[in-house]
This record gives sequence, structure tokens and C-alpha cells, in this order.
Amino acid sequence: MAKALTQPPKGTRDFLPEELRKRSYVTGLIREVYEAHGFQPLETPTFERLDTLLGKYGDEGDQLVFKVLFRGEPLVKGIRAAAAFIEDEQNIVRGRSGETAPGAEGMLADLGLRYDLTVPLARVYAEYRDKQLPAVWKRYQMQPVWRADNPSKGRFREFWQCDVDVVGSDSRVVEAEVIGAVAECLERLGFAEFEIRLNHRGLLTALCEVAGVAKGLEAEAIVAIDKLDKVSPEVVGAELEAKGVSAVARERLLALVAEASSLDALEREMSGHAAGLAAITDLRVVLGLAGVTPAASHLRFDLSLARGLGYYTGAIFEIRVPDLAGSLGGGGRYDGLIGMFLGKEVPACGFSIGLERILVVMEERGMYPAHLSAASDVLLGFTDESQVASALETARALRRAGFRVDLRPASIKSDKLRKLAFDAGFPAVITLEGDGKRSLKVFAERLLDPSRAAALRACLED
Amino acid sequence: MAKALTQPPKGTRDFLPEELRKRSYVTGLIREVYEAHGFQPLETPTFERLDTLLGKYGDEGDQLVFKVLFRGEPLVKGIRAAAAFIEDEQNIVRGRSGETAPGAEGMLADLGLRYDLTVPLARVYAEYRDKQLPAVWKRYQMQPVWRADNPSKGRFREFWQCDVDVVGSDSRVVEAEVIGAVAECLERLGFAEFEIRLNHRGLLTALCEVAGVAKGLEAEAIVAIDKLDKVSPEVVGAELEAKGVSAVARERLLALVAEASSLDALEREMSGHAAGLAAITDLRVVLGLAGVTPAASHLRFDLSLARGLGYYTGAIFEIRVPDLAGSLGGGGRYDGLIGMFLGKEVPACGFSIGLERILVVMEERGMYPAHLSAASDVLLGFTDESQVASALETARALRRAGFRVDLRPASIKSDKLRKLAFDAGFPAVITLEGDGKRSLKVFAERLLDPSRAAALRACLED
Repeated sequence: MAKALTQPPKGTRDFLPEELRKRSYVTGLIREVYEAHGFQPLETPTFERLDTLLGKYGDEGDQLVFKVLFRGEPLVKGIRAAAAFIEDEQNIVRGRSGETAPGAEGMLADLGLRYDLTVPLARVYAEYRDKQLPAVWKRYQMQPVWRADNPSKGRFREFWQCDVDVVGSDSRVVEAEVIGAVAECLERLGFAEFEIRLNHRGLLTALCEVAGVAKGLEAEAIVAIDKLDKVSPEVVGAELEAKGVSAVARERLLALVAEASSLDALEREMSGHAAGLAAITDLRVVLGLAGVTPAASHLRFDLSLARGLGYYTGAIFEIRVPDLAGSLGGGGRYDGLIGMFLGKEVPACGFSIGLERILVVMEERGMYPAHLSAASDVLLGFTDESQVASALETARALRRAGFRVDLRPASIKSDKLRKLAFDAGFPAVITLEGDGKRSLKVFAERLLDPSRAAALRACLED
Repeated sequence: MAKALTQPPKGTRDFLPEELRKRSYVTGLIREVYEAHGFQPLETPTFERLDTLLGKYGDEGDQLVFKVLFRGEPLVKGIRAAAAFIEDEQNIVRGRSGETAPGAEGMLADLGLRYDLTVPLARVYAEYRDKQLPAVWKRYQMQPVWRADNPSKGRFREFWQCDVDVVGSDSRVVEAEVIGAVAECLERLGFAEFEIRLNHRGLLTALCEVAGVAKGLEAEAIVAIDKLDKVSPEVVGAELEAKGVSAVARERLLALVAEASSLDALEREMSGHAAGLAAITDLRVVLGLAGVTPAASHLRFDLSLARGLGYYTGAIFEIRVPDLAGSLGGGGRYDGLIGMFLGKEVPACGFSIGLERILVVMEERGMYPAHLSAASDVLLGFTDESQVASALETARALRRAGFRVDLRPASIKSDKLRKLAFDAGFPAVITLEGDGKRSLKVFAERLLDPSRAAALRACLED
């Protein structure tokens, strides 16, 4: 038999126990914090109708949706339609790798794999809002999403997202609560020095107007400004020039950003600009309320923060950690998106934690608690088959006392058992000898604290 | 804008909070019991290479695998190949609903959605066995699987499976441990009266031989016998006749099953049949060892149990609950399956809990703990906007003290807030009045026990 390919498919991962214990530790802690903040869980199906997904993520996004082939009868019709479609040269796109025909995909598929957690949120809100959901719906969702991207280091085709959102309220308490909850997650995960940077969509638009950026160039100007934390003002200036922003506007824009270290300073520059001043007031309210949450000491206004902007309508936020490029998550208010299936605006505000990134950073920085390295508390074994029932009884008693016990199913020599336990990271090993004697060895430097070790000893003496 | 379809796709479900709390309660408890028994978690990707899946579940199973469409360049080639394929009339199957062409699917797809948890287990074992897995690998896995079946009541296209297996040991301690772990799960979920019925593949084969069932008819005879718990011996006899089992063999087979209420009785009937006697001995060992586990009082030998048989090679087991047709799960030893990617036999034994079924039965029988109905412990609100910062501070203090607090983000009249809290099932409601006074109302019949209520009161007094 030819050796079958047994790696996981390209861009996906098998999660073995040690990795899973770390992932569960992080997701469990986030879950606990979000539930303490009154957020409720949501889980949606792995696939959605293709027409639910397409058109929501731009043309490139549509291409990256994994599509599920028709089943049964529609497939034959679909093949005929797709074959006719690609016969027309105009429908073929020629690229470096060969021919593609993006338009044919919808003729062969009716379902697509979940691409993010926001479109499902909007669909679920539209479906259940008047019946099963509260008027102010606070939900969190942690599930995998799939993108048919080219995988690279740290980029996967299957990866987990972790979103917390409030739908149905335009109170700024909502901004404070999502920021506070995220801050508490980060603190409890062991990130001490993080910052939550804040800015405001209205402020960025006002800034462009005050600087004299021509209408229609604001979005591109803001994208350029967003890079100021990575590259020099000169590089940003060159990008602004390339985009067609005038020399006067470029200079004024960069000066405004450089000088606006505080909202007070910015307020003076914005005097007379009603929308700009309103955005400043709004951001002050958010900062004030978030200052009463666990985020208090982590807040920082950052006028250069733009977060791609797109759908944000109010305050925007982003997590920064010292000595780490990029962010560990971000969010903001986006009142225009959740109503996509209802044809109306629905107030919404959320924060997305970069779960995969956080897992990598915690690994690199050794931030996982030591106890996660132990699969079980005790390895239990017997040296003689006559002890097998006794071993099962001992295992049962220890488990009742709250210990995780791995029972080695076949007899083994006692020194081999101890070596096995040590190598596999067990904190303790119990050997049942042929004469019924039971010996306990606790590896002192391992993870059983003294009171647990004493409890283990007591169990054996019963 | 035309109203978009916002239900979940056919055969799938959105899980809203109350449902999810119940699901998490059950899966969390199973997880805890399995980890106490030394089992380690595994999670595999949502999709597998199509050639990993196809050919493992029979022709019908191959049809039920959801397939993921090619992306980019291979799609154009695939469409051409599939179009040529269906041009040949011989490749078209005509059914009631129209034309299908099963053979075309593999020309358009390279990935398939996970169909069960056993093929991924076998793939993962083949990939990591010598490197990252222990010689005796005890794993549990709880993940969704997908089948392109026609959904009906209680049957879904996306549903969760929950498997526990031991790979790499032929010790009967393994049978005892999986049976014991499952029994403990059921007990802790509140099933008191369940039975774990046991039988043995070798015994069923021997039974057919002793009864004189002709070679080649054993499998079908056993499938018929499996129905004895649902239909009368006469109906089973008629099925045996239809399958071609002779009158003498039919009578003898039914008599053996009827008389064999115990292994002792059966042993006498099997005298001289070496394989049959060996199977009896093996089953006695399993029953003896399982008798030392939490399954002790739930074990019952049942000669009519067959579990479709297929891949089982030793003891087989099934969970039965009074007043419930069908089973809540089953398993057994299957030494031939896990080596499918290695081309060799690998000893394995497992138990699969019918998670979806258990969830339904627990709902129907009101077995969920009352505390699962409360989304949070406290609804906190304020009657006047002047109290908003104070409300955030109070929420923070209560959360620190371990309460799950839902903060209503906008001011609300106190009687409206109390009604809202009562209707939404909160055990307690706290109102911050305009003058800074804080009032607590605990709905006494709800879920906060007296000590928690006292702790809540103490928090407010600080």
C-alpha cells in the first residue's frame, strides 16, 4: 500500500494535547471575563448560504471564501452552466498561474465556509431580534473561520476569531464595557504593559478637512497617516503625494498629527469645525467612562490610529503591546453594518481579540502557567497482572478525590514506570507492586503543591 | 431591498445563549470526567483532503461527504473534465429527482468536511505516532461533523460527535476504563437507571456457527438478531428466512439467544467451540474489570446486541436508558481500523457518546440544573445619567467579587428595570437612583443561594 498523505490539509493544523491545553486556557479565561461582563455566547453554523457571504467582503474576499460543491441534481446543471460560461473567452481571467474563472464558482456551489464572525452576527440579529434576543444584545463568539489564502508563517486557512459586540445601543457605556472587558482579559492573561489606543472616525475626517485634503482623498490620506507608527513622516508624506494630496494639505496634515498629542491641543486646532469638535467631545466621553473600568491605566489617545476605517462610525480602538509590531486586536463603533440584512442602521460596537496572535506571543514570551504542561496529575501503574483490579480501584478512589489519573493498562517494571512518568511530565507516579504494596513518588519540582501531594498520600493510605 | 433569507442553512442550527449554556454544561462535564481518566483532547481541521475521506464510509457515505470546490486554476480544468465526463450518458444516474453524476464530484473538489471522528483519529495517529504521541494514546474528541443527508426531526447536517478512544493497547483494562468513564459521565449528568449492555463479536460469530447458519450469512443473521429488543422473535425469524437462513438454523439461533441469559448458560451451549469459549472468557475479563469502575452496577450481558458489527473485533457495548428507544451511545474494540493509513493492525477500543441525543433527552426530561437558565447573576441599571460612572464602578466591584453582571447601558425607570430583570430571568437586580442610593432586589425563588445573596449585599455596602 502506498503511504497515504497524513498531514493536515494545507493551511490547517491538528491540535495535539499540549497545544490544546494552552488554547483552552486562553479561550476559557476570555469566556469567563466576557460572561462576568454580561456577554452571552453565540455559535453559528460552519457554512452559510453563499449569497449570505458574497458581496460582503469585497471582490478579493469573495474569492477567498471556501465554497461547498452542489450535491445531487443541481450539480449536473451547474457543470453544464459552468462549462458554457468558460467557453466564453471573456469570462476567463489569465494570470501567472494559468486560467481562472471566478464567475463560475457560484454555478457549482450554494454554501460557503464562515469567513468572519460579523456577517453571521448580522444574519442572526436579523433573524431573531424581535423574538429571542434582548433589545440590547451583548454577545461574544469564538469560532474558527476559513479563508482560501496562501498560507504563510502564522497565517492559516483555518483560524479562530474572538469577537465581543453590543448590538442595539448607542450609549457610550457600551464602548467602555467592551474596552474594559478586553483590558481585563489581557491583564489576566499576563500582559501588564499593554496600551489600548483610541481615536475617532469623525476626528480623522475632520482632520482631513481642516488640513485641506481634497474631497475624495480623505480615505487614502487616513490610510497613509495610519502608518506613522511604523514609518517616518517623510515616507508618509511621499505616500500622500503619490495619492494626489497637495503639498499644502500634506504639510498641514502631518503637522496637525505631530502636534496633536492631546485632545486639548487638538480642540484648539479644530475650533469652528463643528463635526470635529463633536467627535472630540464623544471621544472624551468614551475615555472618561472607560477610565472607570479595568482599562483605566491603559488608555491612550492616538490621532494616527485609523484601523483601515471602512465601516467604523465613531470611536475606534486598538491593543498595542511593547516590543511587538502590529496589534493584538481592535474594534470600534460601526453603526452601519449589523443592519445589512434589514436595510436599516443598527447601532453596534465591538472589539475583536487577535486570538491566534495572542497564543503565539504568549508562547514566545513563556507566559503560560506551568501547570498546563502536565497532561494528568498522576501516572498509575502495576508491576504484576495480579494487581490490575486493585489498580482500577485505586484509580477510581484518586479520581473521586479530584485527581486526574492516567492508568497504564499493562504491567510494567517499577523503574521503567518511573522513568516514563518523569519523561512524560507527570508530577507524581504511583506503583502497585505484586505484593499489593503501593508506592508514591512525587517529583518535587513538578506541579503538585504540598497540600495536593499530602491529599494524594492520604488517598493511598485509606 | 428584498428581505434576505436569514435562517441558518438547511440542516444546521444557530445556537443562542440558553441552548449554548446547556450544551457547554454537558460537554464541560464530559471533558472533566475524561480528563480525570487520563484522556487527552484532540482537535482536527474542519476539512480533510478528499482522498483521506473517500472510500472509508462506503458508497453512500462518499455521497454524503460535503465537498469543497477547487479554487483558482484547477477549477477551470475541473469544469472541462466534469463537462466531458457528463457528456457520456453512462456516467449519468437518473433518479426520481433528476440527473446526478457522482463521479464528477472529485473532478471539482479537493477537500471534504469532516464526516466522523474516527478517520481523523486514524490519520493523526499515522502522522504523529512515533514522534508526538505516547505508545498508549488515550484521546477524546468533541467536534462537529457534517453529512449531506436529508435533515429531519432530530437529524442534522451539522452535528456534534463525542468520542473517547485508546489506541495502542490490547489490555482489557482499556475496555474497563472507557466503560467506566462513560458511566461516570452519565451518572454525573443525572442518568440514574441506565444500563451498559455488553456483547462480543467473537461470540456472535460462534453463535451463528453453533446454530448452523450457512457461511456468508452470519453478518446478516447478526443484524437480524440485533432487532430482538425492538420486534418479536417471529419477526426476526421471518427476516432470517428472507435472508436465506435455513429453518433448523433459525430455530436453533433464536433458541440460543432466548436461553442464553447468562454467560454460564452460554458456555454450556458452546462447549467444544474454541473461539466461542475464548470470546466468553474475554468478555468475562472485561465484565470483571469494568465491575471495579463506576460502571459496576450498570453492566448487563446482552447476547442480542450487535451494533451493526462492521469493524468491531472484540467486546462491544451500548448505553440503554429506560423508556427510550435506541441507545445513547456505544463502542467496542476495533483492532483493524486505526491502522488504515499505515497498512497494519493497531489495537484500539473506544466509546462514542450520542451527544445530540443526550441533549434532547435531558431537555425532554428536565434534567438541566436550574442555574443554567440565568444568563447573568445581576442586572445593574441606573435611573439617571448622572450615575453612569458610578454604575460602571459598581459593576467592576461586583465582577471582582465573582458575580456575572449585566450593566444596562442607558438610564431606565426603576420599576421598568425590575420588570425587565424579572422577565429575563435574572436572580437579582440593582438600581442606582439619581441621588446615589443603591437598591438591591433579589428574586428569592431564583438561583442566588443565601450566602451569595449576602455577599452581594456586602459588596453594595462597601
